[in-house]
Amino acid sequence: VPQGGNTGLVGAQIPDQTGSQLIVSLSRLNKIRNLSADGRTMGVEAGVTLQQINEAAEDADLLFPLSIASRGSCQLGGFLSTNAGGTAVLTYGNARDMVLGLEVVLADGTLWNGLNRLRKNNTGYDLKHLFIGGEGTLGIITAAELKLFDPPQGKSTAFAGMVDIDKVHQLFRAAKSQAGRGLVAFEFIPRIGIEFVLKHGAETRDPLSEPHNWYVLLEITSEQSDQSADEMMQSVLASALENGAIDDAVIAQSEDQSSQFWYVRDIMSEVQRPEGGSIKHDIAVPVAELPTYLPEAMALVRRLVPGCRPVPFGHYGDGNVHFNISQPIGMEKAAFLDHWDEVSHQVHDLTVSVGGTFSAEHGVGALKRASMLKYKDPVELQLMAKIKQTLDPQGILNPGKLLPDQ
Amino acid sequence: VPQGGNTGLVGAQIPDQTGSQLIVSLSRLNKIRNLSADGRTMGVEAGVTLQQINEAAEDADLLFPLSIASRGSCQLGGFLSTNAGGTAVLTYGNARDMVLGLEVVLADGTLWNGLNRLRKNNTGYDLKHLFIGGEGTLGIITAAELKLFDPPQGKSTAFAGMVDIDKVHQLFRAAKSQAGRGLVAFEFIPRIGIEFVLKHGAETRDPLSEPHNWYVLLEITSEQSDQSADEMMQSVLASALENGAIDDAVIAQSEDQSSQFWYVRDIMSEVQRPEGGSIKHDIAVPVAELPTYLPEAMALVRRLVPGCRPVPFGHYGDGNVHFNISQPIGMEKAAFLDHWDEVSHQVHDLTVSVGGTFSAEHGVGALKRASMLKYKDPVELQLMAKIKQTLDPQGILNPGKLLPDQ
Repeated sequence: VPQGGNTGLVGAQIPDQTGSQLIVSLSRLNKIRNLSADGRTMGVEAGVTLQQINEAAEDADLLFPLSIASRGSCQLGGFLSTNAGGTAVLTYGNARDMVLGLEVVLADGTLWNGLNRLRKNNTGYDLKHLFIGGEGTLGIITAAELKLFDPPQGKSTAFAGMVDIDKVHQLFRAAKSQAGRGLVAFEFIPRIGIEFVLKHGAETRDPLSEPHNWYVLLEITSEQSDQSADEMMQSVLASALENGAIDDAVIAQSEDQSSQFWYVRDIMSEVQRPEGGSIKHDIAVPVAELPTYLPEAMALVRRLVPGCRPVPFGHYGDGNVHFNISQPIGMEKAAFLDHWDEVSHQVHDLTVSVGGTFSAEHGVGALKRASMLKYKDPVELQLMAKIKQTLDPQGILNPGKLLPDQ
Repeated sequence: VPQGGNTGLVGAQIPDQTGSQLIVSLSRLNKIRNLSADGRTMGVEAGVTLQQINEAAEDADLLFPLSIASRGSCQLGGFLSTNAGGTAVLTYGNARDMVLGLEVVLADGTLWNGLNRLRKNNTGYDLKHLFIGGEGTLGIITAAELKLFDPPQGKSTAFAGMVDIDKVHQLFRAAKSQAGRGLVAFEFIPRIGIEFVLKHGAETRDPLSEPHNWYVLLEITSEQSDQSADEMMQSVLASALENGAIDDAVIAQSEDQSSQFWYVRDIMSEVQRPEGGSIKHDIAVPVAELPTYLPEAMALVRRLVPGCRPVPFGHYGDGNVHFNISQPIGMEKAAFLDHWDEVSHQVHDLTVSVGGTFSAEHGVGALKRASMLKYKDPVELQLMAKIKQTLDPQGILNPGKLLPDQ
């Protein structure tokens, strides 16, 4: 059972209860091996944290754009094995898209040196993609060659408030088509999420003067300057105000204010904890489906557990919603959590029925194996089982993870 | 032997001489199945040409950015099976990076529906990457869900002339760090290439008033406007003129002039034909190596065949050089081409010795299987052979391609 920073959310890095499983810690593989400023590449060992990688890139005036809340402790081996997503996927893609090559220990102990540094190398099957997102079930990643990017020259962050999901969608369409790949982040939060922040967050305040049903945190970057990013942001927001997509908006006037906006988004999971039990989903649907899917999913869970409080938030632009549900006020936490399986099944059924997935960025691990069996195409499951059998015939690599029992 | 537009350059789409192989033409799978403007996705069958895809995206005010010379006839199944590259890789990546999902016929006739449209979907191994670049040896791609992009709002194209490869590199560094992901193309051409264009191209003229040893065609795009793209270009070129990286440059003043610049680049292969025999390589090295690699490689081939005329050109920014060598003037074509293996081996030896590859974007096919055996890591070759054995146990899918005889 390979383990890095132990920040995974689906139990992929945790041994079972039998006492017969062994944790292989990668934490002492903690070196940055090389960095080529011209080539925009960095060779990194499995135990280096995301934050160390971010900082090493910055030191070279470059950018490693993966942005997830656990950056201080999550490690390369883990964030590649789960193909982490985060808040900059619109522009930069998932962790998978930031990798050029891998070094992997195979099931028989052989070391595969696939540390390719080239942007173009069409010499046979691109094997790295089996191990990225493979959750340690096909091999143990020991190092990677990462792509680095040029940091944008300017940035503009804004908070906008609107009346319903249709308006969120309208703003998304406008921002995406006006700012193009400059639109790095488009995160959404419901009013109840803001209320939780105000109640449980330290030194927070309402981002807009009046309350709104929904909020969007958006960030636009420019290859030219802050001023140019602000111009794009102003143009997006001005037209959205004019055509009624948004009711109010504020553009951060300083790096401090931008950080305050992001802080509200970043503590969204944490502030749900004091509100009692929370049933959580990491779903994604095609982004065009969100305006119908979200009200339907919220109505569904309210029918299942009257009084429950849906707090859907997250990466609207990717169609990726952290569809969390806080317990009804006054209910026993345990009684609420007893509904987990029933609620989850129905939410996932609805999600998959509109072309969505039951795990967008967290992976499968130990927790979502039953959903694999229920929702994945049997042909695909069989292909996965064959690949597993080929690369790990004895089943010694992270047993009981990712693949369902068949 | 799956075959699309039959434009491949390594013989992957061509049956052997035995008469026992069957071509599976995908040309009649020629429908665009769906297009989601909000989701930036397009569902396309294998026989649709790249140009049809480019145009369908444009009709929806979106962009499918793959840009290769054969766009009029190459088909989806082919450009995915070879993981095509082209002239916009700096910003958009290779064909692989533009795919969300695949539909594939497996060796036993089963259809795998992996037509994922989600930007985030971490539910098991990402199998599509085996078939992309798999040259039809693991399954036959019948359709794909493609990513679409937002077209930039502005573009600036320029031609620059300089004295040596060090200066080409200096300009690349400056352009990349100033324009960031706005730098879409950075293509280089030697003087002899321009001379071939002037001699054999229709209605062409010298792009700059004086001759230069090396030329760069660069394109910068902006999310804001043409004016903003031009400003970035002017700033890059002005500082390069000032610090002596370039001797002259001209920015296209119209779409027509931009097309003229690109025409010079696009006919680079074609104008080598009237010059007699040409020994060709599709190599890539880490871009930081190019300033030492290129002079060394040119000296090497001149030693091997005195009087030969190297015409290295192509995707400097990706480290991907089409290292073509025109025959000495007056030599018999056949006599020159007799040197192919000797020259190729030595060029590839040099390339691999600096961390490069013997096939950057054309693939392996039938022509480069011996190089697979010579240059690829044995562990990696064995992994590939195992995957092939697992997915095509009878070896009926494109036999004799990609994998070396072992």
